[in-house]
Amino acid sequence: MPPPLLVKSRAVTINQSGPGRHPWVMYGRYTQELGVYAKEEAARLRDGGGLRRSTSVRSRSAELLEYEKDPCAKCHVCTSRCQKFLISRVGEDWIFLILLGLVMALVSWVMDYAIAFCQQAQKWMYGGLNSNMLLQYLAWVTYPVVLITFSAGFTQILAPQAVGSGIPEMKTILRGVVLKEYLTFKTFVAKVIGLTCALGSGMPLGKEGPFVHVASLCAALLSKFMAALFGGIYMNELRNTEMLSAACAVGVGCCFAAPIGGVLFSIEVTSTFFAVRNYWRGFFAATFSAFIFRVLAVWNQDEETITALFKTRFRLDFPFDLQELPAFAILGIACGFGGALFVYLNRLIVECMRKQKTINKFLLRKRLVFPAMVTLIISTLTFPPGFGQFMAGQLTQHESLVALLDNRTWSRQGVAEEFDYISHSHAWKHPQVNVFITLIFFIVMKFWMSAVATTMPVPCGAFMPVFLIGAAFGRLVGETMAVMFPDGIHADGSVYPIVPGGYAVVGAAALSGAVTHTVSTAVIVFELTGQISHILPVMIAVILANAVAQSLQPSLYDSIIRIKKLPYLPELGMGHHEKYNVRVEDIMVRDVRYITLSSSYRDVQEVLLIGQLKTLALVESTDSMILLGSIERSQLQSLLSLQLGPSRRLDHLRRHAKDNDTHTLDTHTHLSNLGTMDNPLSPPCTHTYSNSTSNSARHGVRFVVSVAEVSRIHARVMRVLNPLPQIAEWEEQQLDEPVDFNNCKIDPAPFQLVERTSLHKTHTIFSLLGLDHAYVTSTGRLVGVVSLRELRKAIEGSVTVTGVKVRPPLASFRDSGNNTTNVSDVTELHKLWNRHRGLSLPRDPTPVKNICEAHCN
Amino acid sequence: MPPPLLVKSRAVTINQSGPGRHPWVMYGRYTQELGVYAKEEAARLRDGGGLRRSTSVRSRSAELLEYEKDPCAKCHVCTSRCQKFLISRVGEDWIFLILLGLVMALVSWVMDYAIAFCQQAQKWMYGGLNSNMLLQYLAWVTYPVVLITFSAGFTQILAPQAVGSGIPEMKTILRGVVLKEYLTFKTFVAKVIGLTCALGSGMPLGKEGPFVHVASLCAALLSKFMAALFGGIYMNELRNTEMLSAACAVGVGCCFAAPIGGVLFSIEVTSTFFAVRNYWRGFFAATFSAFIFRVLAVWNQDEETITALFKTRFRLDFPFDLQELPAFAILGIACGFGGALFVYLNRLIVECMRKQKTINKFLLRKRLVFPAMVTLIISTLTFPPGFGQFMAGQLTQHESLVALLDNRTWSRQGVAEEFDYISHSHAWKHPQVNVFITLIFFIVMKFWMSAVATTMPVPCGAFMPVFLIGAAFGRLVGETMAVMFPDGIHADGSVYPIVPGGYAVVGAAALSGAVTHTVSTAVIVFELTGQISHILPVMIAVILANAVAQSLQPSLYDSIIRIKKLPYLPELGMGHHEKYNVRVEDIMVRDVRYITLSSSYRDVQEVLLIGQLKTLALVESTDSMILLGSIERSQLQSLLSLQLGPSRRLDHLRRHAKDNDTHTLDTHTHLSNLGTMDNPLSPPCTHTYSNSTSNSARHGVRFVVSVAEVSRIHARVMRVLNPLPQIAEWEEQQLDEPVDFNNCKIDPAPFQLVERTSLHKTHTIFSLLGLDHAYVTSTGRLVGVVSLRELRKAIEGSVTVTGVKVRPPLASFRDSGNNTTNVSDVTELHKLWNRHRGLSLPRDPTPVKNICEAHCN
Repeated sequence: MPPPLLVKSRAVTINQSGPGRHPWVMYGRYTQELGVYAKEEAARLRDGGGLRRSTSVRSRSAELLEYEKDPCAKCHVCTSRCQKFLISRVGEDWIFLILLGLVMALVSWVMDYAIAFCQQAQKWMYGGLNSNMLLQYLAWVTYPVVLITFSAGFTQILAPQAVGSGIPEMKTILRGVVLKEYLTFKTFVAKVIGLTCALGSGMPLGKEGPFVHVASLCAALLSKFMAALFGGIYMNELRNTEMLSAACAVGVGCCFAAPIGGVLFSIEVTSTFFAVRNYWRGFFAATFSAFIFRVLAVWNQDEETITALFKTRFRLDFPFDLQELPAFAILGIACGFGGALFVYLNRLIVECMRKQKTINKFLLRKRLVFPAMVTLIISTLTFPPGFGQFMAGQLTQHESLVALLDNRTWSRQGVAEEFDYISHSHAWKHPQVNVFITLIFFIVMKFWMSAVATTMPVPCGAFMPVFLIGAAFGRLVGETMAVMFPDGIHADGSVYPIVPGGYAVVGAAALSGAVTHTVSTAVIVFELTGQISHILPVMIAVILANAVAQSLQPSLYDSIIRIKKLPYLPELGMGHHEKYNVRVEDIMVRDVRYITLSSSYRDVQEVLLIGQLKTLALVESTDSMILLGSIERSQLQSLLSLQLGPSRRLDHLRRHAKDNDTHTLDTHTHLSNLGTMDNPLSPPCTHTYSNSTSNSARHGVRFVVSVAEVSRIHARVMRVLNPLPQIAEWEEQQLDEPVDFNNCKIDPAPFQLVERTSLHKTHTIFSLLGLDHAYVTSTGRLVGVVSLRELRKAIEGSVTVTGVKVRPPLASFRDSGNNTTNVSDVTELHKLWNRHRGLSLPRDPTPVKNICEAHCN
Repeated sequence: MPPPLLVKSRAVTINQSGPGRHPWVMYGRYTQELGVYAKEEAARLRDGGGLRRSTSVRSRSAELLEYEKDPCAKCHVCTSRCQKFLISRVGEDWIFLILLGLVMALVSWVMDYAIAFCQQAQKWMYGGLNSNMLLQYLAWVTYPVVLITFSAGFTQILAPQAVGSGIPEMKTILRGVVLKEYLTFKTFVAKVIGLTCALGSGMPLGKEGPFVHVASLCAALLSKFMAALFGGIYMNELRNTEMLSAACAVGVGCCFAAPIGGVLFSIEVTSTFFAVRNYWRGFFAATFSAFIFRVLAVWNQDEETITALFKTRFRLDFPFDLQELPAFAILGIACGFGGALFVYLNRLIVECMRKQKTINKFLLRKRLVFPAMVTLIISTLTFPPGFGQFMAGQLTQHESLVALLDNRTWSRQGVAEEFDYISHSHAWKHPQVNVFITLIFFIVMKFWMSAVATTMPVPCGAFMPVFLIGAAFGRLVGETMAVMFPDGIHADGSVYPIVPGGYAVVGAAALSGAVTHTVSTAVIVFELTGQISHILPVMIAVILANAVAQSLQPSLYDSIIRIKKLPYLPELGMGHHEKYNVRVEDIMVRDVRYITLSSSYRDVQEVLLIGQLKTLALVESTDSMILLGSIERSQLQSLLSLQLGPSRRLDHLRRHAKDNDTHTLDTHTHLSNLGTMDNPLSPPCTHTYSNSTSNSARHGVRFVVSVAEVSRIHARVMRVLNPLPQIAEWEEQQLDEPVDFNNCKIDPAPFQLVERTSLHKTHTIFSLLGLDHAYVTSTGRLVGVVSLRELRKAIEGSVTVTGVKVRPPLASFRDSGNNTTNVSDVTELHKLWNRHRGLSLPRDPTPVKNICEAHCN
């Protein structure tokens, strides 16, 4: 009899959040490779009963996951691969980054051109039909509806994961989680074409997030291409991660021609801990990319030379007065509240639609109806002869922004006419309505429109719309100030009038900073406007906006991560110090599933059947519980399949046939059936074995194919063999044998924590090393396990997000009795020590008591 | 008999690099707390023989080190301390940062004022004596010599660690190493006064590095002050580290009124991995500080409003032509070579002086002679009527920089006379000599002068002089360009003349970036000049300069770290991919000293006597070698002192006295001597014991004092007791007893690596977690240990720094036979497994063979 207590008595509580639990999300679905894996597993479970469940060979996705998830844990693979590095030249990184920059600059320039063309086409149609209002309206409305519907349909068919911003997914990928299909060529095509159409429609959508995704796609595809061409260094995953983080910087840098801001923004948005040694990669690639991007503009004679994208012309000698700073500070705080509101509104819309079952069902069936409807409403409202006249409806985002950053004061109707480079300001001046009304109307309408539009299932970001709203809000404050202090507020004689354009810059930086929880938007505006004179007001406003927004809501990207239920570790809120008081022992799962060195195959089978854990702990014995390492699920599966595999089965049958000559016909039919199959079957099987124990990395791809074949043949064999009664008996015997761990790859140093490690530190270690689980040990004994899921729960429990704070269950308990937990610590050690002394000493409880007293001193 | 094999057979190879090995360095000495510790230990070894060596109680420095070094490893301490966080308010961080910003702004403003006053005084003296050339010369020379000598003497007497930049030390401190005396009030005073004098002398010295140090000092002192006042959160070390990194940003931010550049520069210069969640702290504090710093200038009516420190007025509409970019790129590359040369020259000077024994001895005796001599030479050479007339000698650094960033073109002698805000340009125009000659002379002279001046033992940095040289070099290139293309190089009709000031900006950023290996100097120049129009040239030049300099030399700060032999982990060079090929097993120390659960006190004593390791491994048994945890040296010392302590000694004597009534007089005298001592002795002893096992964190400080007392009493007791012959016998008995680990605090989860972990990953983990050693295990068995020292050696062996590359000893071996190491891995497991199966199965070598074959497939 196998010891069933070992496995059965321990309930399974840890589950990787499987894909079954991820509801369909308004924009984009989360289907990890794990999903495929789980489905395969489920199919196997349906197909055959009992044994065959676990005798499956390693699934393809498990194979992929193993080498691509969490490069840190795979040192074996890395090192064996990295030996190829010796042949690599020093310059390869540079070449790759230059190529990446070049490609991205070209892609973004072509996209910009296409978007401008689309927008021009709409204007031309709209302008050409100005004789008939109805036709004009139809043209104005149909054009974006068609574009958006096409964009939604195209991405839906080709690659649904191209939907949305892409920054949340990149954050997750850089965190170490593999979201395979997010970096494929299909996604690239879907994202680029979808985004071009979406932006060409003139809806309030942004391109920053999608550009980050597109750049990452470029980097990933370029890596694959280079690996296929040159091999060597391009095969390394660690390097690929570094390149991905550089690519994020390139994305932002290209989008705004802002290399420094791009690097900083991408760091703030995607990383938790940033390796400073990767810094230069980002700077290099982003600079090169921004350079090429701008050079293309010069070359195309759009510009005379390389300058900023939204160049401002504020006066340099006296940019702002010291006494204006309170106004800037108030603007920042207001933007903070606005940013939090935007994130809340965006989430509310998604959640409302998801909860309303009728809407949800309808939208699920007719996926293109929602974007079409939203586009229809928004374009109707912005129709220039209609409501649009009160909100500068005919201007594109670019034109609006140029107008808002104008250095003239609107409320006094064009003081400095010498600047004739802007012709969009007149759109803001309505004959009947004050410019203030126009601005307020613009802000309010654009606010909810942007929040709604960014939930459409098309590739789109929210940065640019928010930036625009912020600029409008800043302009509003600036104009108000200009009216209040027509001669400026400088004390002595000289008159320095207030520059409302400066307020617009500050507002744009502050609102976009508040929504994304970044301070680098400050740098982005400097690069975007080409002027740094307002540095102090911008910094003050951005920091205040961040402070307000961070205390109210998560960032937009974190919010989307939560909505999409991506496997990400949330940030610890700032200032919430109770996280120091929660310890691993409060959140860990105590019923760890494990294998001992003396486990039988039956135990392994049972452990595999119970749950979906990717790795299992290996302990010395149930008694000692000393943690020796962790084994991957796939390894255990191949162990089982080796033990009960067809070749051994065949051996047994042959021996059985020799022993008693009954069943001659029956067995012989089977054997002749198998005889033909035996040859193609055995070699891959041995191959499987050799791979799993050693250098499977190099043979990875080839192996996967052969395994798929084997799997099919295997299933056939099983179907043929199973009916025999003696096989069932033989199986039972085989299962009772102890496991032969020689054939198994064991990770001999899984990451370990102590019970008393604080939540704060656990979080730090998890994010630093990109772990997804860690064992909790007490002087070598396995006492629990903590996975990302527990950690996420604990953090979300302890951090106030929606106003209600849930304290972790055991935290309050410890507040009263501080030192009680120390005892268990020492007791454990004492037990171990005593156990070790064994029989020589009598088990005397007094030392423990002594220690307790000592603790309570 | 104790098992002597256990300890003796294993040679000691790991040593913390003790202070004895640190030679006296030209500027500043490295005396860590470890030094004090080692001295105490040595004193103990001298004082008494045999037993008393190891019965010492925990030394003060060990106590301090325990709680202040590497907060990550001290979760017990952290969590118990952090419970006080519950009472803390959310806003405390903000308050602290505001206070820090305020204090630093005031300090830097006052210092700036004092420096300006000093420089003005020199000018006034020089100007007042223009009738007599000799008097004038004497005044010109004496003034700086006096100031520098005073500065050197003052810092030497008060706090020698205030000497130099401070950035290398801050880098080391933020890495997790405690350099206690670097953050004291004495150092603060010495640094502030010394720096003011040094800068006031007009020598080519910078203030950026010292400001970083001063800001860190402010933060540390403010923390202490707040902790004394309010307690709670201010006691936490994790938090203090976060605040120190914010302080570094404040330092740079204040120095240049450049908050963004300050944050980025401080990150690049001090961190290896940066926690993005600490980002806002830096930004907040630096912005607030820069704001106050500039507001003080406005309030003092130096300025009308808040603007940049070195405001430039380049034209906005066409800042530079696309065809000028090659010139900028060449400028960047040249600056890269220049930067590397500067670092090399600086190190060469220090090393020359150290190697030349006569010079070294002389300088050691007369410490003030060297700075006085250097100052004399430099000020003689810059004497305006002498050589100074060819290198704008009468200008201060500030004035020179303002002149160099001028937007007029010098080679055509003042085209645009409408700008009258600069009056320093005339200093560059010599009646007989071309402006090019002046510039070249200036660059060459300042180059070596700065390299020499920064080696003086005064508080000083090198950033500003390098920045100035870069600006001059850029100006030189720009003027050359302007001469070559008098009408600009734009193709079509419009004339856009070349702006040499733009080249000066680019050169300044590139050279300072090359010397410090940072790209954020680009951001600093934007903030410093208030113009961002040259962003692309600056970025291109800075990146190229970095690429060149990084491949030739370490950064200036890393060079100083190496010169001062600070305990820091060097960076992995970029592009040197062989680091992936070195594994932990190549560099680890295999002879680990350890304690087993069955060790006797004699083993412990021997282990303690052999070396200076701070922590020792605890394994289950010599046979199994399963790693259970690590024990601190101090813990073992207290275990020993408990076992052989005076109270137990006394007990034994009493019992002995009872047993046989001989020696009545002798023993009684001793007992009566001890009787008075026993009472004050015992309670602290128990206290020691209770502390060491549990919450010593809270009692930390109090405890240290009581231990010092105990130590003294203890020594007296020992002197009284030792002569008795029966005591020696008793001691021998006691030593043979097995250790009682109940009274010992064990870290149950020391950091572990696997043999096959690559050097690259080991480096990452060490820098991420701030480790100073890690155990190497193979399926739970301890096989080696890696400390910072081994890692440093391995990296310095594999990274080319001075042109000679040393490959690690075993790396070449593995290139030929790839899979051989896999076998050992599996063999280990196999052994364990077999051992576990024990007697039931025969030891069969075939499975191993099978695996080998499988591996070699």
